Amino acid sequence: MCQLFALTSHQPVSPDFSLRGFFQRGGKTGDHSDGWGLALFRDGQLELQTHISAAHSCRRATELLQTKPRATTVVAHIRKATVGDVSPQNSHPFTRTLWGETWAFAHNGDLKDFHPGTSVDYLPKGQTDSELAFCHIFSRLASTFETKPPVHVLAEFLYSLSAEISRHGTFNYLLSNGTLLIAHCSTELYWAHRSFPFGKVELLDLDMSIDLGEFNSEDESMFVVATKPLTRGEAWCPMGRGELRVFEGGRMVHVLPPTPVCNRQPIDWNSAWASHHVVIS
Amino acid sequence: MCQLFALTSHQPVSPDFSLRGFFQRGGKTGDHSDGWGLALFRDGQLELQTHISAAHSCRRATELLQTKPRATTVVAHIRKATVGDVSPQNSHPFTRTLWGETWAFAHNGDLKDFHPGTSVDYLPKGQTDSELAFCHIFSRLASTFETKPPVHVLAEFLYSLSAEISRHGTFNYLLSNGTLLIAHCSTELYWAHRSFPFGKVELLDLDMSIDLGEFNSEDESMFVVATKPLTRGEAWCPMGRGELRVFEGGRMVHVLPPTPVCNRQPIDWNSAWASHHVVIS
Repeated sequence: MCQLFALTSHQPVSPDFSLRGFFQRGGKTGDHSDGWGLALFRDGQLELQTHISAAHSCRRATELLQTKPRATTVVAHIRKATVGDVSPQNSHPFTRTLWGETWAFAHNGDLKDFHPGTSVDYLPKGQTDSELAFCHIFSRLASTFETKPPVHVLAEFLYSLSAEISRHGTFNYLLSNGTLLIAHCSTELYWAHRSFPFGKVELLDLDMSIDLGEFNSEDESMFVVATKPLTRGEAWCPMGRGELRVFEGGRMVHVLPPTPVCNRQPIDWNSAWASHHVVIS
Repeated sequence: MCQLFALTSHQPVSPDFSLRGFFQRGGKTGDHSDGWGLALFRDGQLELQTHISAAHSCRRATELLQTKPRATTVVAHIRKATVGDVSPQNSHPFTRTLWGETWAFAHNGDLKDFHPGTSVDYLPKGQTDSELAFCHIFSRLASTFETKPPVHVLAEFLYSLSAEISRHGTFNYLLSNGTLLIAHCSTELYWAHRSFPFGKVELLDLDMSIDLGEFNSEDESMFVVATKPLTRGEAWCPMGRGELRVFEGGRMVHVLPPTPVCNRQPIDWNSAWASHHVVIS
């Protein structure tokens, strides 16, 4: 199995803090050490890199994070190979062109007895069930929509098709063209909203904390998505089985099936503490 | 391994909704099917039951939930046996008396090369590393404090001792005397705060939702704790490695080590949706 990470932001931001924690799971706090990949979208351009080394100890990962690369949309993946060799053509994110745009796709899960047809425009290059699912989805999208449909139509289509594919196994995935970020959950995927007032958060996988308020302005809004929460100090909302969420420019714009808004009302912590003689130390 | 669940509330409430989801993991959505146990504290009295059947299909579990038992503190456990037989004496929660009070203890994890001494007052009855750890902790508490110390002293002591024990493996646990609920995380444990305005939440493990606002008054405050989040529609905050939290009567009263307050600021969802042409369906 693998793990997924994504970020979508109103303005370009560096995902290096979150990625530092995420990459620890690529060989240190997790055994997803068979490769890592990162798709960075900025100004409509995709920068993609994939490696077959363990993220946590990979020199290129370290160097990349030190440059604090800025992007409005990020899709990252750390791999634990189950289907397909450890090789570049089996590394996520996979990319394909559709409706004149480049899309990146990363998957967490295993699909069994899954042998769908794909069009000649979307043939897999590697051996993974993940790339095959991506090609199948894009074959179906291309044959159904000549041009990019409105977001809610795209979301409904992907929601139904993903439910079909999920019958073959675990199918958590991230898909993005740099503007839209689509997250589908079949078993496990979390999202967190980072917005004003930003607070201090700590990585769960590394002894490192950051005050997001120092780095973000009042009008910044971003969402992070991950297979498992990355931080303490902020709230993570689990997605349900079969749920699909669409984000656009740091906002959440569509949810299927309809779901209650994640209940994140403010807590009057001072009053909560003060009502007891023991305060937070 | 096992899974843990706890609830602490300002007033007696029925945990049946959350437990319905939790018990699904005892044999249906999870393989923790080697037993289940439930400690219900109400008016200072403990009602304990443990069973060696799978929670999700156990008639007694179903009947219990139908009675909607009310309690101010709840500690529940579903077991996947790793150390010790599937037998009543190895079923969590374990209970012991200390400082004239009855305490319940439930553990998720495995401790390796763990052979601590225990006093004659706290001898294990079963074979689990869990009960041994509980007896070790209580032996140390009883020899250190003649009477129950203030909460922050108790928290500091348990925090240090739990760090020592965690060197032997995974040591997530819940401990309660009905007033205090203590949660220690060595690898994975989440908490969620339920308070006014209550919202609609959906179970992740069962097709069931509830509007908590219909069942709870404005002054109600409760926390739920679980190995993995149980619902969508509310925010879950992951605890860090080594973290210990103390709850009392539906409030969080102590956290070690000091941590940023979980950032749960309200989102102006209407504005977020309205800025796009697609609205939530």
